[in-house]
Amino acid sequence: MARGTNGKSQRQKKLTKYLANNPLLKDEDLAGVLGVSIQTIRLDRSELNIPELRERMKTALQGDSPVKSLGSDELFGELLDIEVGCYGISMLNITPEMAFRKNLVARGHHLFAQANSLAIAIIDAEIALTGSARVQFKQPVKAGDKVVARADITGYNDNRYKVEVKSTVLDQTVLESAFTVFVLHKEDN
Amino acid sequence: MARGTNGKSQRQKKLTKYLANNPLLKDEDLAGVLGVSIQTIRLDRSELNIPELRERMKTALQGDSPVKSLGSDELFGELLDIEVGCYGISMLNITPEMAFRKNLVARGHHLFAQANSLAIAIIDAEIALTGSARVQFKQPVKAGDKVVARADITGYNDNRYKVEVKSTVLDQTVLESAFTVFVLHKEDN
Repeated sequence: MARGTNGKSQRQKKLTKYLANNPLLKDEDLAGVLGVSIQTIRLDRSELNIPELRERMKTALQGDSPVKSLGSDELFGELLDIEVGCYGISMLNITPEMAFRKNLVARGHHLFAQANSLAIAIIDAEIALTGSARVQFKQPVKAGDKVVARADITGYNDNRYKVEVKSTVLDQTVLESAFTVFVLHKEDN
Repeated sequence: MARGTNGKSQRQKKLTKYLANNPLLKDEDLAGVLGVSIQTIRLDRSELNIPELRERMKTALQGDSPVKSLGSDELFGELLDIEVGCYGISMLNITPEMAFRKNLVARGHHLFAQANSLAIAIIDAEIALTGSARVQFKQPVKAGDKVVARADITGYNDNRYKVEVKSTVLDQTVLESAFTVFVLHKEDN
């Protein structure tokens, strides 16, 4: 994590963006994702005049989701940032229920679900379906980790999108994945 | 589906095997997987002297699971057949909650979870973790479908297994996947 004034200004920019995209993020989640203490997040919010969660929830109830291809509760993880047709960032809290009881390592399909649903969410179409995927688990993820995934559309051809997703825990890559996503009946809808 | 006496004898063999591996399968599930009516399954069970579910549950409570690498409730789907170190077959009922609300197509990560957890289950080791995966969705799966997955170990090298999984709905392939699974500290455990 970058430190000092630059680090702070960078962090506050991210914080503002993440909360603009998802006003329901908790201070605790933001602290985990940005690699600082909850106290620091509270100070940042205070400096930036961003109200606390309860206030933000009221405002959020009036807004509309930018995501077309998914229901708002169909994303696996919390949306941090999105530009539909371009990229998206989400965060997934790994709970003990998502891990093998034996070793508390997160089960692969949860990380897959985060990456896959984010890849679908950034597609600018009403109906998008996964055609194929390649995934590489780089590091085991443990219960308690917060996984930040970033998906980018890296190619487009007819009705087929290529989406690459990188999932990280505090700057360490834990999963790299690439999806082919098909848009169905784009003209008809 | 094969018909006639041969088909019946084949079906009854499968039925016996599936119930031996998983006594808690419902007649309805067996009917779906074997492509016959519930009535046929009941007749088969009667001919084979296999008791009804409630009776089988009592007996099942005394048995031990052959699966080492997963907790018995960590498999995604119902186990139909398994030979640890070799292959496994499971069945997943697609419920409406597993599908996109828009089009009732099953979300990819559920099929991935079935295939991935089956690939882990057939590994003869206490700790097995997925290293990488390639998946190809061949046909959309709908809510109400019963997906039968078969996983086979197709290669082994040092602490790394190659597992191939084919998922079908009534003989139609819906997902083909290949996993690299790593066995951790095999000697130490």
